[in-house]
Amino acid sequence: MPQLRLLPRRVWAALLSQLLRPPCASSPGAVHCHSQGTRDLSPQQMVVREKILDLVVSCFKRHGAKGLDTPAFELKEVLTEKYGDDSGLIYDLKDQGGELLSLRYDLTVPFARYLAMNKLKKMKRYHVGKVWRRESPTVVQGRYREFCQCDFDIAGQFDPMIPDAECLKIMCEILSGLQLGDFLIKVNDRRIMDGMFAVCGVPESKFRAIGSSIDKLDKMSWKDVRHEMVTTKGLAPEVADHIGDYVQCHGGVTLVEQMFQDPRLSQNKQALEGLEDLKLLFEYLTLFGISEKISFDLSLARGLDYYTGVIYEAILLQSPAQAGEEPLSMGSVAAGGRYDGLVGMFDPKGHNVPCVGLSIGVERIFSIVEQRMKTSGESVRTTETQVFVATPQKNFLQERLKLIAELWDAGIKAEMLYKNNPKLLTQLHYCENTGIPLVVIIGEQELKEGVIKLRSVASREEVAIKRENLVAEIQKRLSEA
Amino acid sequence: MPQLRLLPRRVWAALLSQLLRPPCASSPGAVHCHSQGTRDLSPQQMVVREKILDLVVSCFKRHGAKGLDTPAFELKEVLTEKYGDDSGLIYDLKDQGGELLSLRYDLTVPFARYLAMNKLKKMKRYHVGKVWRRESPTVVQGRYREFCQCDFDIAGQFDPMIPDAECLKIMCEILSGLQLGDFLIKVNDRRIMDGMFAVCGVPESKFRAIGSSIDKLDKMSWKDVRHEMVTTKGLAPEVADHIGDYVQCHGGVTLVEQMFQDPRLSQNKQALEGLEDLKLLFEYLTLFGISEKISFDLSLARGLDYYTGVIYEAILLQSPAQAGEEPLSMGSVAAGGRYDGLVGMFDPKGHNVPCVGLSIGVERIFSIVEQRMKTSGESVRTTETQVFVATPQKNFLQERLKLIAELWDAGIKAEMLYKNNPKLLTQLHYCENTGIPLVVIIGEQELKEGVIKLRSVASREEVAIKRENLVAEIQKRLSEA
Repeated sequence: MPQLRLLPRRVWAALLSQLLRPPCASSPGAVHCHSQGTRDLSPQQMVVREKILDLVVSCFKRHGAKGLDTPAFELKEVLTEKYGDDSGLIYDLKDQGGELLSLRYDLTVPFARYLAMNKLKKMKRYHVGKVWRRESPTVVQGRYREFCQCDFDIAGQFDPMIPDAECLKIMCEILSGLQLGDFLIKVNDRRIMDGMFAVCGVPESKFRAIGSSIDKLDKMSWKDVRHEMVTTKGLAPEVADHIGDYVQCHGGVTLVEQMFQDPRLSQNKQALEGLEDLKLLFEYLTLFGISEKISFDLSLARGLDYYTGVIYEAILLQSPAQAGEEPLSMGSVAAGGRYDGLVGMFDPKGHNVPCVGLSIGVERIFSIVEQRMKTSGESVRTTETQVFVATPQKNFLQERLKLIAELWDAGIKAEMLYKNNPKLLTQLHYCENTGIPLVVIIGEQELKEGVIKLRSVASREEVAIKRENLVAEIQKRLSEA
Repeated sequence: MPQLRLLPRRVWAALLSQLLRPPCASSPGAVHCHSQGTRDLSPQQMVVREKILDLVVSCFKRHGAKGLDTPAFELKEVLTEKYGDDSGLIYDLKDQGGELLSLRYDLTVPFARYLAMNKLKKMKRYHVGKVWRRESPTVVQGRYREFCQCDFDIAGQFDPMIPDAECLKIMCEILSGLQLGDFLIKVNDRRIMDGMFAVCGVPESKFRAIGSSIDKLDKMSWKDVRHEMVTTKGLAPEVADHIGDYVQCHGGVTLVEQMFQDPRLSQNKQALEGLEDLKLLFEYLTLFGISEKISFDLSLARGLDYYTGVIYEAILLQSPAQAGEEPLSMGSVAAGGRYDGLVGMFDPKGHNVPCVGLSIGVERIFSIVEQRMKTSGESVRTTETQVFVATPQKNFLQERLKLIAELWDAGIKAEMLYKNNPKLLTQLHYCENTGIPLVVIIGEQELKEGVIKLRSVASREEVAIKRENLVAEIQKRLSEA
């Protein structure tokens, strides 16, 4: 039997996911949310971001993706009728005489526009970039209006479910690589969802509206969602109850098998196609060794209009406070799906290019990693400086400048204080505070003897090294470190 | 005597710099300029961009800079009264109910806003990001309305000219590192320019307007600039001629010395301060070993309002067609200067933080490198895939999937075709076309014997390797390559 979700789990999940969102306005220290709903990223945050993005991009490259960049704004018409209810969140540019422009809302629509515009029939690309959504401050609860997305997509006509399986493999590699703890990827298919709506008696005109209610099941209880469907969206109560039987089902490949036997669903052609594909998908996921991370979940809806086939969403799990309960969800950190009709919307003749892809929710991941670092008191270096050039004496600026230029020219990361006569203690403190491991010290004595003192900040050991051997000695020490 | 520039050189320079701009609309192949004045970057272009940005950022890190990121849009009021004549080029967002917002025009103003907002008194930061300028299509001649900037800035109260000299050192390191050919950095000082205007008899109210005419001397002849100053800006002809004597002067530190002796300029307090600083600057540049790359140039004006001290601009030189002529300018590729008053504009109490910085004109550099690659017929790989997983037989998808997952999990960059039964020749052609160096081949024979064939695409040599040794063997080969 499919597992039934417990109400307390959802409540907990919603609470936790709110706690984990980057707090807007009330945050201490480095995070500043501007009145316009955006924020600066401080050097500390940039280090964390860079590490996460490096891992994500190197995974995309491991899977053979090419890079692509598109402009921040598109013609307004490119973005219209792509995002369903969320279209109101698009930022428009002021009409200053010229084309009507809007800031991009995601990276998927610009990719589809690029494929159509360049008449490309296949492409495996990644794209890291900012997108903008004008969410209302009361809704956002700490979400920012500008955020970074990391997308990987495979466009082209291929044999079924091979690229789709690779997308799920990539999500697993990235989430494992980031060491965020246990995770689960929920999978469903738009055709199964639509088939389910059809056999439950939902009028076709209400498919997307009911889908968007279903989409809230990770934040609201079934009772509340049911209420919304019946009261706000005018669904007959017995239809809602039929849906309820399905959307509370989740499980592995055995649930796929069960659904093939379902007396109602198995009568629907669309749903059967979706189930066939999911069965094949699970076969490939097993070969990839990741099937235990994947859960077929009939409640997964995904808000965007453009999905046509398999859809998925990764959530982080957290061990529950009380033993015996299921792991708690900490919110979605990656998602995607198949969109076979989007490219055709940009082609003058409507020629389509089937696509499947994923997007990593790096902002959520940033805040989880940041939160952890705060809790653990872990600090990060915000510079990579390897060597500091110091002097114990006055009037040694010229020698310091000559010396530091020599280091820079040898590719060594080096700093000095921009003072004519800094105190030695100030210089050494600077190294300790910023984590610079080596200091080279030049004074009158050293100048006379043609040597430089090389000091390890950690051990405070100092050795004299011939001036001409200094660069080689530093490079040796750095390569050993 | 200071060198006098020849008219033909300017004409040539203007011609060449037009030729070198990325051609809009008329370009073949990958570059597509959209009607809104922006463009997509194709995978080929992304590879070039990534290489250039890597070199630039690693230089910034070598000098101890921290990363920073600011939002694409700022409150409109943050950007007003910072850019002089160019303020009309700022993109505004539509008023959708909320704050009035504008897309950032450069990275300097957001940096100053960040310092003031966070009450930071010193910071050495770099920032790579896009900026937007709504230049009119007739003016742009192939310039894009969205482009990338790479900025490095040093904020803080330090001893004179030490950070300024480091900024020039950084520009030299980057331009040498990029191997763009010979270059020259023009240096001037806003105080020398203003002093020069004062002693020539320019009314103070016209300083910025006349400065912006002078700024055109790299694109227009002195005759045309003089005409503009007299006719359009209402300057007395004899005042223009006085200016003409100065702005045609350029040279090294000896020109600085000469200007100290100049009977008019030496009477001006501001100009003397600027000359003192330039003298000190040249001393430091000599210690850095870069003084021969720097030219004191009284015609350098820089358009932006916020500069207060030293200003500089790097140009690429090209050997002239005719022997005996001076090297030709190929347009500005980096620029910057000191802006000691900008942070105070964002501080409620007007507290200032002195700043100096530079911006690398990566778009110009991209197009030069791209142009060169086209001319030389050099091609770049757009993926980094190391190994291709192939089969000569039908019904081997499962084995290929298992094998490729093993490679991915070992961190090896691997691809396969998304087909159930691809032809071997198609698979090998794919490797040749995309530059993948290694192929692993699995078929019935190999499966039976527990081996995998490893093929070098270049030499076409194949060896059988035990399945369990495959990853180690591939890693060995890749580390040797």
